[in-house]
Amino acid sequence: MSLITVGTMAFDAIETPFGKVDKITGGSALYVAYAASNFVKPVQQISIIGDDFPIEEMDELKSRGVQLDGVEIVKDKKSFFWSGRYHEDMNSRDTLITDLNVLADFKPVVPDSYQGAEFLMLGNLHPQTQLSVIKQMKERPKLIAMDTMNFWMDIAMDDLNTVLKEVDMLIINDAEARQLTGMFSLVKAAKSILAMGPKYLIIKKGEHGALLFDNDSVFFAPALPLEDVFDPTGAGDTFAGGFIGHLAKTGDISFENMKRGIIVGSAMASFCVEKFGATRLKEINNGDINNRIQVFKDLVSFEIELD
Amino acid sequence: MSLITVGTMAFDAIETPFGKVDKITGGSALYVAYAASNFVKPVQQISIIGDDFPIEEMDELKSRGVQLDGVEIVKDKKSFFWSGRYHEDMNSRDTLITDLNVLADFKPVVPDSYQGAEFLMLGNLHPQTQLSVIKQMKERPKLIAMDTMNFWMDIAMDDLNTVLKEVDMLIINDAEARQLTGMFSLVKAAKSILAMGPKYLIIKKGEHGALLFDNDSVFFAPALPLEDVFDPTGAGDTFAGGFIGHLAKTGDISFENMKRGIIVGSAMASFCVEKFGATRLKEINNGDINNRIQVFKDLVSFEIELD
Repeated sequence: MSLITVGTMAFDAIETPFGKVDKITGGSALYVAYAASNFVKPVQQISIIGDDFPIEEMDELKSRGVQLDGVEIVKDKKSFFWSGRYHEDMNSRDTLITDLNVLADFKPVVPDSYQGAEFLMLGNLHPQTQLSVIKQMKERPKLIAMDTMNFWMDIAMDDLNTVLKEVDMLIINDAEARQLTGMFSLVKAAKSILAMGPKYLIIKKGEHGALLFDNDSVFFAPALPLEDVFDPTGAGDTFAGGFIGHLAKTGDISFENMKRGIIVGSAMASFCVEKFGATRLKEINNGDINNRIQVFKDLVSFEIELD
Repeated sequence: MSLITVGTMAFDAIETPFGKVDKITGGSALYVAYAASNFVKPVQQISIIGDDFPIEEMDELKSRGVQLDGVEIVKDKKSFFWSGRYHEDMNSRDTLITDLNVLADFKPVVPDSYQGAEFLMLGNLHPQTQLSVIKQMKERPKLIAMDTMNFWMDIAMDDLNTVLKEVDMLIINDAEARQLTGMFSLVKAAKSILAMGPKYLIIKKGEHGALLFDNDSVFFAPALPLEDVFDPTGAGDTFAGGFIGHLAKTGDISFENMKRGIIVGSAMASFCVEKFGATRLKEINNGDINNRIQVFKDLVSFEIELD
């Protein structure tokens, strides 16, 4: 099975209560690729970067089975740059700078070599951009998942509604689910979103875990209780990458297997937050991942006999 | 096995986004009793009320195997009264009125008929009051659990430290755990609290579930995702009542059985929030409880094979 991931590759400047970095590689597609490539090869990346993006990062990705044919490199232009500062609770942050740079002209092209991919992960981009990728697929992938954000709900809700009808799964956070539906109850918001098009919905609650919904069922997985969350940047994309990477590895899109995907994604996200940016994701191996999944099993498993 | 529960029996006035009640019976010991009496009899209540407390409520409790020998009734005085208003997110509330009334003179006396109880649940009271109950027990219970609140940390921290050394388990919410330790990370806060005396700690996170810690292990259970949380009043005490009721029923204080207790407590709390006050707790039967526990199992259970 193969997986296409569409999204940003960027430089981030990050400040947390534990420290700061001025320039570290990031972006949604980068996190998805580092997470998913543990489970499925190839990961077929579609993104746009300036000629300032480090060759070493590209080589690192390639060495993990990430194909970069779909990554456009724009000469004499800068890569997307984001800067943010986290509050003490690590659940909220202020965006300080957003320099779109090359991202302003991003018109993703699906390379011929990517055609036939069974899984498609659409990172947070303009809904029209997301839709253009779906339309380029000659054969419909087995599963199309997408992310989005409040910004598109504010300025492009019609386009967002259109692309929602074309995807199988939406992966968003709790605040986004509430804004998208105007409903405070996440259970009600989920029903409303499932009526907009997607058959499956994941609502990410940050340190409070994640919920998976379809029309019949709901599944919950906690985030790992950690001594320190060092840097949450990219944790949501890493979660999505681990999730869809597991689905692509197994080729199984049953609800039962999506539950496993949620656990895998949660495990990957728990690594991501341990160091700045994607640093920790580059250090871990299969043994580390399996150990972490076991920690999740121990955290939530119980046996109970009903009278 | 028998269970002593010490705490308030009160009138509450509650306002939520869904409605309001001017005067409904409540109080920590009342919620603990309604929850625990589904699992263990007798529940031996220690509290104080005025002569305005309804006979019907006392009869209802008695019919469920709750003994009231330890409930002092003060003539010509009023019962404790609390009034609060919940915010739209239901996670926070403003206290509007606290009329201590009879509670100002509460000097709990353990009746002879309660001696020998294996389980003791100390509701949120002045730590000296909690300690006085422990000192009256001729035989140490198998498990002593206590609640507390930020108020006692502010004005009676020395007394709180003293009683913490005498109990087996502390049951508090996340904000209280953070205030008690000055640590934001709940994992670090837990380690710090376990060093203060208790062998076990439960941190309640409201709609985000609950964590159980001992020095070696951690267990997490979510709260049930509900369409509507109608009234959260008493949910924490109901959780505690279901938890310790399950322990008292089984007589088993292993960590594995405490995990089951957390699930039982979470199920009971999920009923509590469905209607005002303890209304819903009086309607449910064993079948309802077992069905709800099954919903919890379905919500979090998954099978995953490690490579």
